[in-house]
Amino acid sequence: MVDSLRAAVVGTGLIGGSILLRLRERGVDVAGWDPDAATRAEGRARGIDFPDALADAVRDRDVVFLCGPLSSLPETLRTVGGLTGPDCVLTDVGSTKGGIAAYAAGHGLTGRFVPGHPMAGTERAGLTAASPALFDGAAWVLCPTAAGLDRFRTLAVLLVDVFGARIVPLDPDAHDAAAALASHLPHLLAGTLAATVAEADLRDAALGLAAGSFRDGTRVVGTPAARTVDMLLNNRDQLLAQLDRVRGLLDRYAAALRGGDAAALADLQQRARGLRLALLDRELPAAAPRTFPRALPPGAEPDDAAADGELAYLLSLGAAGGYLTGCEVTDATVTYAAHLPRGC
Amino acid sequence: MVDSLRAAVVGTGLIGGSILLRLRERGVDVAGWDPDAATRAEGRARGIDFPDALADAVRDRDVVFLCGPLSSLPETLRTVGGLTGPDCVLTDVGSTKGGIAAYAAGHGLTGRFVPGHPMAGTERAGLTAASPALFDGAAWVLCPTAAGLDRFRTLAVLLVDVFGARIVPLDPDAHDAAAALASHLPHLLAGTLAATVAEADLRDAALGLAAGSFRDGTRVVGTPAARTVDMLLNNRDQLLAQLDRVRGLLDRYAAALRGGDAAALADLQQRARGLRLALLDRELPAAAPRTFPRALPPGAEPDDAAADGELAYLLSLGAAGGYLTGCEVTDATVTYAAHLPRGC
Repeated sequence: MVDSLRAAVVGTGLIGGSILLRLRERGVDVAGWDPDAATRAEGRARGIDFPDALADAVRDRDVVFLCGPLSSLPETLRTVGGLTGPDCVLTDVGSTKGGIAAYAAGHGLTGRFVPGHPMAGTERAGLTAASPALFDGAAWVLCPTAAGLDRFRTLAVLLVDVFGARIVPLDPDAHDAAAALASHLPHLLAGTLAATVAEADLRDAALGLAAGSFRDGTRVVGTPAARTVDMLLNNRDQLLAQLDRVRGLLDRYAAALRGGDAAALADLQQRARGLRLALLDRELPAAAPRTFPRALPPGAEPDDAAADGELAYLLSLGAAGGYLTGCEVTDATVTYAAHLPRGC
Repeated sequence: MVDSLRAAVVGTGLIGGSILLRLRERGVDVAGWDPDAATRAEGRARGIDFPDALADAVRDRDVVFLCGPLSSLPETLRTVGGLTGPDCVLTDVGSTKGGIAAYAAGHGLTGRFVPGHPMAGTERAGLTAASPALFDGAAWVLCPTAAGLDRFRTLAVLLVDVFGARIVPLDPDAHDAAAALASHLPHLLAGTLAATVAEADLRDAALGLAAGSFRDGTRVVGTPAARTVDMLLNNRDQLLAQLDRVRGLLDRYAAALRGGDAAALADLQQRARGLRLALLDRELPAAAPRTFPRALPPGAEPDDAAADGELAYLLSLGAAGGYLTGCEVTDATVTYAAHLPRGC
């Protein structure tokens, strides 16, 4: 499938650029486009197809990856949706999914658009910082819908084949809640740590003593501020809810410190450490493959019962912490290979 | 000097073991001791002098490094102080300095004991995890006193020669305040982040999405819980004060999120990012060397005026974020090579 695929990437910064470079490395016919003329020139200098007009970059493509700043993605989706035909699959890479899924529904694009979020990045920016290996083995969230199941399958096959990605199917709201914990909160706490030291009387002495714990704890603060602010604001309801829980935990740490309660502190640290060890030791066992009827021949109405079964399977898999490592589509069926936490 | 030095390391886990291995690698005659018999056996199996009796390990040594669990260090100091003669220099590696400095004063050991804290570590534990390169180029805090200036100089020469350390001279209280910011707060916030996810309904889904920001933000949580608890409790007053400031910053983040105030969020992130860039770009320029009279011939009373000038220089250097990279001692003088932040 990959050999004959024609893809485009719109917005070729760190994330989009890394997607483009990997597609190209794997022999996919891929065009790039970026609103920045210097980036387009850089792309062309590297021998990549980088037309000046967006319409030329996305015309007759099978798949278009919508990248670039988070706040720009709804407008990009609307524009590219208008420039491409009904068979072109659209997906994005934004770090929140509820807003753009609702936007797609409001613009009649739910059937063509599969919200996505590859879980990798660095604090650097731009096509020059892009790397074809950025997503090696990374979790890649896709949000399937009943109307867009066939497009979900197309993308799952592509992302597994080309990126070696672990596909995590999630409902947009579940994604936003989990991403608040896994990504947005770490960014906010890193910012808090660095800002606390920045405003301290002993700023310079503290910098003089900073070693591994401070370096690791502030690494993501190097991300361009506008990118982080965009991300935090776009998920603010989920983030505020998690922030309340963080403040509750800080209260527990403070109470234990004030009371000299070593047992309470040890309990908190053991909980935290257990989570860390679970993260490091996260090789999930393979689950039994699941096969569903592919009840959507071209032009037919979606078979709601069949689609619901497949959709329910996918969404519960992701919510349980599992991921797909394969998707095989025949004329009549679709079969998923998956990994799941023990006991799920 | 190093060639003729006889040293001992008491408590040979990650930190003490790394000190011991580096001293040995550089040709220093060094003995080890650990309360754990299996660790002593492991040391002997590696060809290191590891007597079973503590007295045998520290007898006739010029310098003894007191390592091991933070809470055990006062008792170790008292014991080793009693087993060694008045010319033996004692130093420790504990992550807080106020308590043990007061303990030393209370036991008449201020003149022999130089509180220390090498700013490096990993989340692993034990002699097997030790590495002679752990402190390469690391900041190493020493707390000089008027009565112990000569011992401070001896240690400074040794640590620069053997470890390539950057010596940061600090008052014990200034150390504890700066270490709360640079180390203890990062540990506490990493624990808070991990515990928040550990207790979340979406724990497994969040683990499934965890990438660089979460991994880096929770790395130090892998430290054995007892070690972290010991450290946090031993610096609780400073830590509680910094925790109040952290909570103030979280309130500002929450208010900005609630109000959709992108400008306020950007201001916070810019402050944080500025601190991060200052950390990464921290190559301090060399300051003019400073020479002081070495007014403490063996057996003489400390020359308070001269000692105060040297002591004041050292403590203000560390408080400003500077460090020493050299200490040259002659019969009559001591000369320091130092680096200082621009403008200090």
